[in-house]
Amino acid sequence: MVYSFGPARCDGNATQKALLGGKGANLADMTSIGLPVPPGFTITTETCAAYEKSGNRMPKGLMKEVAAAIAHLEKETGKRFGDADNPLLVSVRSGAAVSMPGMMDTILNLGLNDSAVVGLAKATGNPRFAYDAYRRLINMYGDVVMGVHHHHFEAAFDAVKKRYHVEADTDVPAEGLEELCESYKQVCLRHVGKAFPQDPLKQIELAIEAVFRSWNKPTAISYRTINGIRGLAGTAVNVQSMVFGNMGEDSGTGVAFTRNPSTGENRFYGEFLVNAQGEDVVAGIRTPRPLSEMARWNAKVSKQLATIRTKLEKHYRDMQDIEFTIERGRLHMLQTRNGKRTGAAAVRIAVEMVKERLIDRRTAMARIPAGDITQLLLPRFDDKAKRSATVVATGLPASPGASCGALAFTADEAVERTLKGEKVLLVRKETSPEDVEGMHHAAGILTSTGGMTSHAAVVARGWGKCCVAGAGALSIDAAKGKIRIGNRTLGRKDVLSIDGSTGEVMLGEVERIVPKKVPADLETVLGWADAAARMKVRANADTPADASRARGFGAVGIGLCRTEHMFFEGERIAAMREMILADSAAEREKALGKLLPFQRKDFVGIFTAMKGCPVTVRLLDPPLHEFVPHDDAAQKDLAKRTGVKVADIRRRIAMLHEQNPMLGHRGCRLAVTYPEILRMQVRAIAEATIACRKKRIDAKPEIMIPLVGTRAELAALRASTLETIDEVRKAKKFAGRLDIPVGTMIEIPRAALTADEVAEVADFFSFGTNDLTQMAFGFSRDDINSFLPDYLKQDLLPKDPFQTLDAGGVGQLVRMACEKGRSTDAKLKLGICGEHGGDPESIGFFEEVGLDYVSCSPFRVPVARLVAGQVAGRVAAK
Amino acid sequence: MVYSFGPARCDGNATQKALLGGKGANLADMTSIGLPVPPGFTITTETCAAYEKSGNRMPKGLMKEVAAAIAHLEKETGKRFGDADNPLLVSVRSGAAVSMPGMMDTILNLGLNDSAVVGLAKATGNPRFAYDAYRRLINMYGDVVMGVHHHHFEAAFDAVKKRYHVEADTDVPAEGLEELCESYKQVCLRHVGKAFPQDPLKQIELAIEAVFRSWNKPTAISYRTINGIRGLAGTAVNVQSMVFGNMGEDSGTGVAFTRNPSTGENRFYGEFLVNAQGEDVVAGIRTPRPLSEMARWNAKVSKQLATIRTKLEKHYRDMQDIEFTIERGRLHMLQTRNGKRTGAAAVRIAVEMVKERLIDRRTAMARIPAGDITQLLLPRFDDKAKRSATVVATGLPASPGASCGALAFTADEAVERTLKGEKVLLVRKETSPEDVEGMHHAAGILTSTGGMTSHAAVVARGWGKCCVAGAGALSIDAAKGKIRIGNRTLGRKDVLSIDGSTGEVMLGEVERIVPKKVPADLETVLGWADAAARMKVRANADTPADASRARGFGAVGIGLCRTEHMFFEGERIAAMREMILADSAAEREKALGKLLPFQRKDFVGIFTAMKGCPVTVRLLDPPLHEFVPHDDAAQKDLAKRTGVKVADIRRRIAMLHEQNPMLGHRGCRLAVTYPEILRMQVRAIAEATIACRKKRIDAKPEIMIPLVGTRAELAALRASTLETIDEVRKAKKFAGRLDIPVGTMIEIPRAALTADEVAEVADFFSFGTNDLTQMAFGFSRDDINSFLPDYLKQDLLPKDPFQTLDAGGVGQLVRMACEKGRSTDAKLKLGICGEHGGDPESIGFFEEVGLDYVSCSPFRVPVARLVAGQVAGRVAAK
Repeated sequence: MVYSFGPARCDGNATQKALLGGKGANLADMTSIGLPVPPGFTITTETCAAYEKSGNRMPKGLMKEVAAAIAHLEKETGKRFGDADNPLLVSVRSGAAVSMPGMMDTILNLGLNDSAVVGLAKATGNPRFAYDAYRRLINMYGDVVMGVHHHHFEAAFDAVKKRYHVEADTDVPAEGLEELCESYKQVCLRHVGKAFPQDPLKQIELAIEAVFRSWNKPTAISYRTINGIRGLAGTAVNVQSMVFGNMGEDSGTGVAFTRNPSTGENRFYGEFLVNAQGEDVVAGIRTPRPLSEMARWNAKVSKQLATIRTKLEKHYRDMQDIEFTIERGRLHMLQTRNGKRTGAAAVRIAVEMVKERLIDRRTAMARIPAGDITQLLLPRFDDKAKRSATVVATGLPASPGASCGALAFTADEAVERTLKGEKVLLVRKETSPEDVEGMHHAAGILTSTGGMTSHAAVVARGWGKCCVAGAGALSIDAAKGKIRIGNRTLGRKDVLSIDGSTGEVMLGEVERIVPKKVPADLETVLGWADAAARMKVRANADTPADASRARGFGAVGIGLCRTEHMFFEGERIAAMREMILADSAAEREKALGKLLPFQRKDFVGIFTAMKGCPVTVRLLDPPLHEFVPHDDAAQKDLAKRTGVKVADIRRRIAMLHEQNPMLGHRGCRLAVTYPEILRMQVRAIAEATIACRKKRIDAKPEIMIPLVGTRAELAALRASTLETIDEVRKAKKFAGRLDIPVGTMIEIPRAALTADEVAEVADFFSFGTNDLTQMAFGFSRDDINSFLPDYLKQDLLPKDPFQTLDAGGVGQLVRMACEKGRSTDAKLKLGICGEHGGDPESIGFFEEVGLDYVSCSPFRVPVARLVAGQVAGRVAAK
Repeated sequence: MVYSFGPARCDGNATQKALLGGKGANLADMTSIGLPVPPGFTITTETCAAYEKSGNRMPKGLMKEVAAAIAHLEKETGKRFGDADNPLLVSVRSGAAVSMPGMMDTILNLGLNDSAVVGLAKATGNPRFAYDAYRRLINMYGDVVMGVHHHHFEAAFDAVKKRYHVEADTDVPAEGLEELCESYKQVCLRHVGKAFPQDPLKQIELAIEAVFRSWNKPTAISYRTINGIRGLAGTAVNVQSMVFGNMGEDSGTGVAFTRNPSTGENRFYGEFLVNAQGEDVVAGIRTPRPLSEMARWNAKVSKQLATIRTKLEKHYRDMQDIEFTIERGRLHMLQTRNGKRTGAAAVRIAVEMVKERLIDRRTAMARIPAGDITQLLLPRFDDKAKRSATVVATGLPASPGASCGALAFTADEAVERTLKGEKVLLVRKETSPEDVEGMHHAAGILTSTGGMTSHAAVVARGWGKCCVAGAGALSIDAAKGKIRIGNRTLGRKDVLSIDGSTGEVMLGEVERIVPKKVPADLETVLGWADAAARMKVRANADTPADASRARGFGAVGIGLCRTEHMFFEGERIAAMREMILADSAAEREKALGKLLPFQRKDFVGIFTAMKGCPVTVRLLDPPLHEFVPHDDAAQKDLAKRTGVKVADIRRRIAMLHEQNPMLGHRGCRLAVTYPEILRMQVRAIAEATIACRKKRIDAKPEIMIPLVGTRAELAALRASTLETIDEVRKAKKFAGRLDIPVGTMIEIPRAALTADEVAEVADFFSFGTNDLTQMAFGFSRDDINSFLPDYLKQDLLPKDPFQTLDAGGVGQLVRMACEKGRSTDAKLKLGICGEHGGDPESIGFFEEVGLDYVSCSPFRVPVARLVAGQVAGRVAAK
């Protein structure tokens, strides 16, 4: 259950992350390669699991092993636990296999008690330091282990400060701190009826237990849920001998990244605080100094750190995130781990490490979290708009992006208002693990204190969410829902814009632009990916502008061109409504006749933008009631335009109403009852193709019939499609072949189940995994919010199945349709055009089942290209 | 292509129905066993298919074969085609493998032309008869083959009658009919520009082609769609030498059943008309005389018919439906086929034929169309109510049952008003094939002319729809939407009740009762079925009354006891609404506490009624918005009762609104978000079980969790279910085992796909095929009517998939869930409780996949029992 690490003996190694947690394994590893790590030991994650399994009871024999490890530690350090001369102090920290910043409780200075504090004062010659350490212990211990509310300690501290007529903590003298320790002990006794334990081993035992318990704190569970972290046994507990960054001006503490985690630049990057404990940096209470200033403070340590940086990168062949402490001029390494980074940094580091021959291309690709590269293509503020914007404050560029939103002052408020459809920025003095859900929901995060490695910054960067931290000009009154910046006061309804790449905070909603080009480093990576990939990547695009953007992002075709959006502008919607109100096929045809030229023009535009690349056009899909006006004024207007009585219009609209429109009269069912709609659309496609080809533009349309459930449906509609194409060919006297493939969406479970039959009359399948998910789960995407949060919280679903394909269930239908379809036609072209086409995990699944292409929004095309390269050749795991 | 039948040569036989059609095969067969069948020949159904396939062209060589067959016929009859002395006349009739009464066109008297008519007059010595035959030919031929509208002929006939100052057709003398023939020929020439063909072979050729064409008339297609007739090649054409029932008072024509088709009584049953052609009987224009009166008219023929009746029953071992004609005292058999019969008749005939040792039990069971036996359990009028009802007319008891409805005067009107939710009777002078859709939709059919074998009677009996025919007291003015009966005038809004077992027509809606006992003959058959069956039959029942009825009909358990209905009465709905409006789990629990005693009492009642039989209780399923009031007054009332502000109530109700409630917050999703609802229901079940067992009532509840899609859902809810049961057991200090199986509905496609996982935590599966069909097809059952009619018409679906399980698609999910479920637990109990549990065809499928039981509405239990017996041992055809 216990693994020691130290110069004399090191039980663990870097491969044991599952057992020792990331922190524990790397402490052992760093020790092994000779770095100055304070010795200690790690209690395994399995021990935590055993604790949980036995109904929160400490496993038998654990404390015996701990006592032995402590004894060994006393030998390594030459100090003794509870010693009145030179006491051994330790920290207790959690550390799971996956990093969860700030989620688990940490306690420092364990081993101090009424006699050891005297020893510490003696050993350090600094009673103030000793009592400060002791009061910190009692405070943290009381809070985390004993459950005393923090503000009781604060009140006691305030009383002492009052007594000594000082304002800052640091101005309280040693005697004051000594009194404070007494007073803190009283606080414990008074508020939970138990004394602060004087036995160092007891302290350790209860602290270990507290770490175990913290594994299942609601905030920890919530973090794991949001981040999709599953399958872990529990947390490890690291007990490590203390080193102090707060022993005076020759001491300090810091965190650093071996390369810039925001940009990826190959420069040592970090911050340190003189005369401070590590927690002070992470908590963002004081604003630290950049690492570049360290040489001026202590050249030797600065040089030593630089050497360690190189050693670590060579050893781990990846960018490292380290924590260190300088105790009286001596450097100690407290942690190393692979550093979190923005998408841009991930790409740049991958490309540069390939150039530096640290890693190969395959490793480089694999190391880029594909979802993060969308950050490189994130909207950014329009330069012009920004120039005229009022910058009211500037903070640290904690996580890149450009966000606007009304102000929300608590995590709960951010969740609530976002769920109601509002776009909000979460504005906090600093954030803490309790805030993660609100941070997740908010459009962006703005804090008034804290550095680049504060909680807000680290968490936001992990998600790729825009964050500006430490914008000190903001004075936030959360209770009143107001912030003051200079002489301005802003409230809940006011909107700010924040630039996560510059730290600027601007008034109002500043206009943003969407990048159209892929940055050079990313293009390099995507080139590797394209070369490695088997699957092609297409885009979902409905307009020539979208189509151009898709080409710019490297799409090799359009996998879904929706035609319904084309019916909403100006005259079109009028003709569409006329068609819907028509009483006969003849009247419908007349109205459709007005739509035909618009459609044809749209298609010419798209085919031209995509020349040489396939364009899959989906015929009309949504129910007709989406096209009719539901408000009084618009209905009256429609009556005036069409000459139809308002009452008749209302009657018709009422008839179009459906109980469950998602399962209603839509998709190919429209073409079955109104064949003239299909004929008009096919005619427009065929005529546009001929028009393009006559101008030597290589138009390559594919016609996709939506919502097919049976072979008979597709057979009938395919027949009228081909018939119409042939009519157009003859009417236009087009001599060439008009070879337009006709295929179908597979989005109805029944179509997947009978794909062998459907394939008999299809040239291609394209999976509509949105609808397939809706119907396979029986989840209405519009209504799921009333229960999905509970499902995720209770772990009844691993993820939102509309974001990541449910491989175990819905995926069976996809796999089945692929196999059955190809059993009928071995060359059947298979693609996917649902939202999942841009989701990395889902793309892996699509590779496994052998799709020919994925299609996603233009913006996600680079992600999909990268993933297609990463997963190429992945074998189906049935 | 051509098969002759006649005394000298008979090519076909009874086994060739697919090739020769039912009529053709049986004509050959009757000829073979020596019955007096006028000779002729049959053109095969494949020839019709070839005609259709070649784009309506007469197959090569067909007319050569026909000419040869005619030559042979001339030899058999000694008459010659077109002969001026003794001409051969023939009829041309359609005849598919499955009988479609009145759907296909028939032409008589072919072979007559301007010279043959003289020959016929000579040969019969009856010029009036000859010209009457000729004018009938021109009329029918003109109508059916040449496309001249019937009313042009009528106008010409009226002109002749005027000229001769007569009113009845029969009063026009021979000269008048001769003139009429001329005038009819002019009608043809004038209205379609073509002369009536004088060449008999040409007449035949065009007539054959007309029969071929009629196979795809919309009414024929509609009939096949409604009756689920598929897979036929086409129709055969029967060309048969004419015999005449209208050669005078010694001639006649009739139709008969070898047993009573309404009751099954073993007595010869039929009707005949003296001096009439066969079409006169079927069309219902004149009202015929019962067969029992025939001996008085012609004892010899009557005796000969009785002998033939016996011979036919021995030969076919089934009740026969025959057509015959007496020409100048000589009997000719024109057709025999298995007779359509009511459900009651089918049962009685089956039972009696077993007693008569004509057939064995298995054959007897197989011969009862299971769907028809519901007729025996149909609602009938309450005797008391009937005694005080005003009988305004009495017609023929054409098809049993008891129907009430407002009056609809055309088929279209009946369809339209029914689709709007109205209950209508279709009231017609007589019905014709054009009316079938309206007849199908109407609650019942009432005609003022026509006999027991009229179109209305035959079609209605086939469907088991209530029909009163030939109610002569009614004078119908369809154009005005009025009927007069004596001095009463009724319109569209008036309601009549008709008794299809007595022929009574009553004013207003007469109260009906639902039979609770199974009639004796049926009980005999069901006894055989139960003995043969492997599957058990349960009922869907929600109340003690339903439960008793289910037991009475032979259900051996309840497969679906819905609990939501229990929340609607009086105080319950108030508590339910209070629960829904509650802000916290505590308030919800308080409201649920009020519901608990009601639920418990309900369960005690049901368990008591079903003692010893399993009762599967489904936990709350529908979305909560079904329980809240949606109108203003009720909302205000609710506010008063609960003390909640109206505005808050409206807000809460608005929040409950869903876009697609079918895919929304319902089923087990309610239990996930409101665990206290599940706990209350489980508590009620467990407490009721204990209460019953303490009274030595063997309560056997099974708890069914609805709408499960994942193993995790069921695992979590099963855990709290078992926990609650255990709490109750402890609280009630119940010493015995409280073994309540916990299972799930399989109604979400994903549950079927992952049934192996779900089975790990389920004691049983019960298929909810309604929802499974909704989700597998993406069809909202509430909205399907906007497109389903088109789907059925265009043959895109063979049947309404909510009535008969779609074995090819949805059935795959059922089969998959069975196989996967049993791969996890070989003894997993499998059942079905969707609507399909009572559908004969679907039950056959459930036998194939090995379900343990089907559950259906109490009323359908006998049907399900019969089918379970019929299909027992049917092997899965994968």
